[in-house]
Amino acid sequence: MVGRTHGVHAEPTTFGLKAALWHAEAGRNLERLRRAKEAVRVGKISGAVGTFAHVDPDVEEEVCRELGLVPEPVSTQVVQRDRHAEFVGALALLAASLEKIALEIRNLQRTEVLEAEEPFAEGQTGSSAMPHKRNPVGAEQVCGLARLVRANALAALEDVALWHERDISHSSVERVILPDSTSLVDYMLHQMDRILAGLQVYPARMRENLDRTHGLIFSQRVLLALTERGLPRQRAYELVQRNAMRAWRERRSFHELLAADPDVTATLSPAALGSCFDAAWYLRNVDAVYKRLGLVP
Amino acid sequence: MVGRTHGVHAEPTTFGLKAALWHAEAGRNLERLRRAKEAVRVGKISGAVGTFAHVDPDVEEEVCRELGLVPEPVSTQVVQRDRHAEFVGALALLAASLEKIALEIRNLQRTEVLEAEEPFAEGQTGSSAMPHKRNPVGAEQVCGLARLVRANALAALEDVALWHERDISHSSVERVILPDSTSLVDYMLHQMDRILAGLQVYPARMRENLDRTHGLIFSQRVLLALTERGLPRQRAYELVQRNAMRAWRERRSFHELLAADPDVTATLSPAALGSCFDAAWYLRNVDAVYKRLGLVP
Amino acid sequence: MVGRTHGVHAEPTTFGLKAALWHAEAGRNLERLRRAKEAVRVGKISGAVGTFAHVDPDVEEEVCRELGLVPEPVSTQVVQRDRHAEFVGALALLAASLEKIALEIRNLQRTEVLEAEEPFAEGQTGSSAMPHKRNPVGAEQVCGLARLVRANALAALEDVALWHERDISHSSVERVILPDSTSLVDYMLHQMDRILAGLQVYPARMRENLDRTHGLIFSQRVLLALTERGLPRQRAYELVQRNAMRAWRERRSFHELLAADPDVTATLSPAALGSCFDAAWYLRNVDAVYKRLGLVP
Amino acid sequence: MVGRTHGVHAEPTTFGLKAALWHAEAGRNLERLRRAKEAVRVGKISGAVGTFAHVDPDVEEEVCRELGLVPEPVSTQVVQRDRHAEFVGALALLAASLEKIALEIRNLQRTEVLEAEEPFAEGQTGSSAMPHKRNPVGAEQVCGLARLVRANALAALEDVALWHERDISHSSVERVILPDSTSLVDYMLHQMDRILAGLQVYPARMRENLDRTHGLIFSQRVLLALTERGLPRQRAYELVQRNAMRAWRERRSFHELLAADPDVTATLSPAALGSCFDAAWYLRNVDAVYKRLGLVP
Repeated sequence: MVGRTHGVHAEPTTFGLKAALWHAEAGRNLERLRRAKEAVRVGKISGAVGTFAHVDPDVEEEVCRELGLVPEPVSTQVVQRDRHAEFVGALALLAASLEKIALEIRNLQRTEVLEAEEPFAEGQTGSSAMPHKRNPVGAEQVCGLARLVRANALAALEDVALWHERDISHSSVERVILPDSTSLVDYMLHQMDRILAGLQVYPARMRENLDRTHGLIFSQRVLLALTERGLPRQRAYELVQRNAMRAWRERRSFHELLAADPDVTATLSPAALGSCFDAAWYLRNVDAVYKRLGLVP
Repeated sequence: MVGRTHGVHAEPTTFGLKAALWHAEAGRNLERLRRAKEAVRVGKISGAVGTFAHVDPDVEEEVCRELGLVPEPVSTQVVQRDRHAEFVGALALLAASLEKIALEIRNLQRTEVLEAEEPFAEGQTGSSAMPHKRNPVGAEQVCGLARLVRANALAALEDVALWHERDISHSSVERVILPDSTSLVDYMLHQMDRILAGLQVYPARMRENLDRTHGLIFSQRVLLALTERGLPRQRAYELVQRNAMRAWRERRSFHELLAADPDVTATLSPAALGSCFDAAWYLRNVDAVYKRLGLVP
Repeated sequence: MVGRTHGVHAEPTTFGLKAALWHAEAGRNLERLRRAKEAVRVGKISGAVGTFAHVDPDVEEEVCRELGLVPEPVSTQVVQRDRHAEFVGALALLAASLEKIALEIRNLQRTEVLEAEEPFAEGQTGSSAMPHKRNPVGAEQVCGLARLVRANALAALEDVALWHERDISHSSVERVILPDSTSLVDYMLHQMDRILAGLQVYPARMRENLDRTHGLIFSQRVLLALTERGLPRQRAYELVQRNAMRAWRERRSFHELLAADPDVTATLSPAALGSCFDAAWYLRNVDAVYKRLGLVP
Repeated sequence: MVGRTHGVHAEPTTFGLKAALWHAEAGRNLERLRRAKEAVRVGKISGAVGTFAHVDPDVEEEVCRELGLVPEPVSTQVVQRDRHAEFVGALALLAASLEKIALEIRNLQRTEVLEAEEPFAEGQTGSSAMPHKRNPVGAEQVCGLARLVRANALAALEDVALWHERDISHSSVERVILPDSTSLVDYMLHQMDRILAGLQVYPARMRENLDRTHGLIFSQRVLLALTERGLPRQRAYELVQRNAMRAWRERRSFHELLAADPDVTATLSPAALGSCFDAAWYLRNVDAVYKRLGLVP
């Protein structure tokens, strides 16, 4: 499929590479979440101001052990809120990564692109009179919910600076942002799981879109092939440019225009020219990425 | 010194315990920062859409090695922005912790409290006509700057969801938030270092403030002492309450009022009563906290 | 041109209507900005705590008059910061509206859509070998910068709650967010002005994209035409659906399929059927919108 | 009472002036809220993409009139979200102003200050053994809730930039932030109403705190009085400074020290000296502020 930068066609890539990117980022988020859960897996029974005036540290240690918590080494009336801010921050980052996947799917599902669609339950809209009208509402929802978790992360950061041995301003905040953020992210994960598990992918359309620029995404390789065969760079550039401009204006095959240009064919054989338009060549190193990620042996 | 919850006197604590709390939190922030630096210590030379179409993965690996970077296992035109969001998020959390310390100092430096003051260069205000007027402007500045870094962390989270193989919307954001956040936090750390290194601490005032409630912060211990010696709880509570109310209204020593109340002295000897007002008793477990933190052997 | 909801083709609309929407929103932002400027156009010379202890209110009034400011009716050491938060908030809202326009342009400039492009200086990329590769970098930048102003608005809100007659925590914040927000929005306005003034609009492509669904965006009108001519709704729906599904699957003209379906032509004359596919009909009320906005007499 | 800047005693002010400040700010918030309500008091029945393809503008106008709404002059599938962002932004600003009042009360209720307390229901804590332990939990809660509304305002700003004629990403956000923000602010207003209606104010303590610096807050006036009577400024400054430093160090009355310093009394009569320590003089212009605000005739 075509790779796009700035929303504009650039060079061939593969859908698998997009998925590998999500996979690697999911791994980073899992690690962040694991650490963030560890950060808040603490308990304290150190009294009104953290001095253990009325309860010995031993009690704290034993109770925490029974609850599967780590005793907070030093506390005030409460466990310090940098821990909770790290936790909600990790959720917000995870939500942002889900937003990225959802945004990709929304972009791929645009009528003009239509390389993928989120799963669509039969009869979901009740209207088959507009079979093209499948809206990526699940992915759009994930994008919206990420904004909420992000906002919550900010409120969590404002909760860190409490007065002295504790003020209770953080409490009303946490009663909203902790249940909201955890349940929102849980829902987003389920939503994204459903979307990815049932994702409709359209390879034929991908191949078709790959040719939307009439082959211009291969122009750099033609340029290189010409210069490698001895043409001065300036001259090679002129040849590529005049055919590229014409292909774009007239919506004609760049490959065919070049093949019909004697100035080009004088240097490049049909086979050599044809090999410039081989998308597979661009993808020869993709497997190496999967190997790096441990996705293939 | 007195420990305060909700800004109101609660129970004795120590200044060392406050500092130990900061120390432990600084340790967590150091660890977060270390991880966040690791998260962004990556490089990529994988081409326009991340396929290594024109450069082999080997080149990326070698260049990264020379630069002290880790090759990004999978990338698009750019390294993914969850990494940068984690980095700025860690800075925002560190800034929030510095804000907490700064807020504590501002609270301690209030004219009515005055248990500590940030260092004050001779002639800093040019006016010794108001020797009490030492403003915690350094700590106030740290509080303000934390708001900026926190806001930047939010913009970093919005940068994560880019289009396809990259859109460049994140770039203008990062040109501001990356230099700003790093230099702000660097400045805040230096500012806080200066403040803490030269912090004026006033133990005499701490002791004085400890008695601002005329001994009422010890009332719970008196209650306990009475019931431990056999007084019914209801009766013990009445005795404590009537003397506590009087001490508060008349601003008289709670200890002396109790010592003059025959209903109290019938149960509690002067020595037993006196031991209830021993702040040191509240602090007997504080060393155990330092031990936990490895601050004392 | 086609109107899109969820990024999916819906019904015909016009580019003028998009622009009218921006125009109306710009009007609202101008009004907000005007009010916000009024909100901060205040001055105070009321002394260290706002009591006019050393300077009479008359002086404040006269100085403010000379400076073109309104005397703040009541102040502390400073003008209250809700005013500045309103100001930066209005800038953030204006920035969000610019972001919306920029996002629209980015979406229209996608290779697959290509109904508009931001102006492209000759030789801007130095490469005419890829004439399709015009990136909406100006619009992307505006989208990014909106994130910064939005973040600044948040810091401004945190500045409102100062201590007593003033603490100086807001100062370090404002030294960054006031110049940054005003100059960023100024830059964004100039950038957007340049983009809109030189915007390339491609009506031919708009017409072409209008047919990307092979006429399915007109299916509702066909359905209505059939039922208006007496066909039971269920039956009309079946006729539309079977042709719609076929048009979508086989990428054939929905109009032609219907015209060749005897069950349809038995009810709808060729003229009646043809009029269902008239985009102009959908747009007959658009002028009324321009009238409302005072854009046409 | 004493006015405080940076939390440090500055000059006399009055509690009424604090309240007048809140009153004026409340007026600004009411006006913002009124405008924000007007901003969202719009309706639209303009169809799937805003073209009135199936319903005439007349219908929209009539329906809106019946519902007490203003017809949105131009819309897409939805009313544009800059309106909602203005609305939530106005709520966040109102919340920030409430936070400011709440923060003031929390600061005044500190044990060391204790110039005011939020209302305290009899038996609220169940413990009269610690009659000083009245925590400003209502005000602390208001401070916390302001963080939530502020975060919501940010999410509202992110909702403005929708795709084309509408994407639905804003919907999941608004289902949370619109009910949450309105009900939170409603609750905060009731909470603050309760707090202010029942606020305990302690004038005796205010007078007492006014003397916490032993009269040093009047040092500037003494300096002025000396120079006005012909003493060279440098000399006057030396006299003030040496007595000020001594008053601060030895916690003695600045007034009495000056009165016993022959170098001072040579220039200032007891009456003239005494008038420097008259707090009322500082407040002579406060009524003018009330007049400006229309609070007194």
